[in-house]
Amino acid sequence: MRIASWQWGGRLQAGTVSDDGLEVTPLAVADGARGVLEIIERLAQGDGLPREAGPRLPVDVVTLVAPIPQPRRNLFCAGRNYRAHAAELATTVFRESLPQKLDEWPIIFTKFPESVTGPHATVRMPEPSISSQIDYEAELAVVIGKRGRNISRGRAMDYVFGYTVLNDVTARDVQVRHQQWELGKSFDTFCPMGPRIVTADAVDGRNTRVRAWLTTKDGRTELRQDGHTRDLIFDIPTLIETCSRGITLLPGDIIATGTPSGVGMGFQPPKWLQAGDRMRIEIDGVGAIDNLFDYA
Amino acid sequence: MRIASWQWGGRLQAGTVSDDGLEVTPLAVADGARGVLEIIERLAQGDGLPREAGPRLPVDVVTLVAPIPQPRRNLFCAGRNYRAHAAELATTVFRESLPQKLDEWPIIFTKFPESVTGPHATVRMPEPSISSQIDYEAELAVVIGKRGRNISRGRAMDYVFGYTVLNDVTARDVQVRHQQWELGKSFDTFCPMGPRIVTADAVDGRNTRVRAWLTTKDGRTELRQDGHTRDLIFDIPTLIETCSRGITLLPGDIIATGTPSGVGMGFQPPKWLQAGDRMRIEIDGVGAIDNLFDYA
Repeated sequence: MRIASWQWGGRLQAGTVSDDGLEVTPLAVADGARGVLEIIERLAQGDGLPREAGPRLPVDVVTLVAPIPQPRRNLFCAGRNYRAHAAELATTVFRESLPQKLDEWPIIFTKFPESVTGPHATVRMPEPSISSQIDYEAELAVVIGKRGRNISRGRAMDYVFGYTVLNDVTARDVQVRHQQWELGKSFDTFCPMGPRIVTADAVDGRNTRVRAWLTTKDGRTELRQDGHTRDLIFDIPTLIETCSRGITLLPGDIIATGTPSGVGMGFQPPKWLQAGDRMRIEIDGVGAIDNLFDYA
Repeated sequence: MRIASWQWGGRLQAGTVSDDGLEVTPLAVADGARGVLEIIERLAQGDGLPREAGPRLPVDVVTLVAPIPQPRRNLFCAGRNYRAHAAELATTVFRESLPQKLDEWPIIFTKFPESVTGPHATVRMPEPSISSQIDYEAELAVVIGKRGRNISRGRAMDYVFGYTVLNDVTARDVQVRHQQWELGKSFDTFCPMGPRIVTADAVDGRNTRVRAWLTTKDGRTELRQDGHTRDLIFDIPTLIETCSRGITLLPGDIIATGTPSGVGMGFQPPKWLQAGDRMRIEIDGVGAIDNLFDYA
């Protein structure tokens, strides 16, 4: 099943997407902004989908927004979770903070919910005095389907509702100078997400390909990231086990699983995003997001 | 003015507290859990307080909950923001991550909203296999009163709605091993808060005293922390300026300002909290919270 949120006729709706991705059907939810959360919570309680609340629409006539446009709390995000990405960071300012053993415990930081924006929305570049080192991170995101605390690895996949695509946009200079990463990760619009959530029965997030292309203002396109989730240092069950130790996970929580190698910071010299650049991130079986970076 | 949230007759209410702290008056808000947010938002828009929605009640007959029981997103928290506290950490596992210059940029991390609990609630100790190093941090918290982005230090105090007291309870072993601090800071119930919000016209958060007492199971009481907010390394206007760079602050956002010296980790050997311990945190002009630590 595929679930999404969209704007149509000035209203925010939530509902299902056809398997071919070409049509959407609105469902009867109380609040469009929380609509997908409501659907996830109903399914978590064993209730069925809400009834249909309108005709099928071609996806081209609606404006997709992030499938969960207003997460109820910050997103959990894994840092440095692909070996090749950890290696590229070893040549950067992060070299001093690299742990002795990469594999002991995952790094988990968060992004503020208000950084979330749509799968085709423009990412707002900050004033250069605020940050001049804007970077991208293509990531598979896990959407949690039910409430749980101290979830063991063995049971973790039962808590996965589905998957979506996100770009963990990062102001590297801000990330580094505050030691803790939240501020540099949470600028307004720094988390484009979508285009939909694909449920766990329709795709295996543990075994899929994550790619990112950059298209510059003058039209050159380069493949920048090409990774595979089987290369995660900490796999999805381990991330769920880790995040739920002492913390109750809730339906609709989002865990971004980390980014493969190929980020702008890994080049020598680094290649920061420029106004007018576009990023396309595609995850096999989940979908693609495509965002312009520009000043407001 | 003093504003609080409480349970009475099985319902969650929000309203005002008398200047002597002895009586509460419920106000007409749409949703008790979001009640104080609604009051802050109305005042931010220049509307008055909602009308009174019931009789005054003695504070003793209600159960105070956190003044904002469900923050809409993670709390911003300053790390290592008093010089004497930074010095005590220099003898611990944190010595390697101490920056060359403490005063360049603040450390900002977050706590999940669901860690918030009431001013007299029991803090749930995790299973010892999850953490065996539970510590306290007495802090003044700033409550933001209106929306703003890229707020300068000079204008920052206009964005302060008021102040409250919180205990930034921390699982030190978890905080350290994940490098980023969120997980160790965000266990369920690890952020007791209250007993009320005192508005900025009634107290100056830049000039007040923060104290914490520990009472052990066998009844011994020790003053553990005794600091003053004029000793903050990064003052309140600087914290607001920092958090709002690229990130729109919202009414009801909470910024915890950091803890003075005297945390359990600073002792040699460290003094971790034990089940049955109680912590009382008092901030002059704001109020006191008092919480038992115990297994669920």
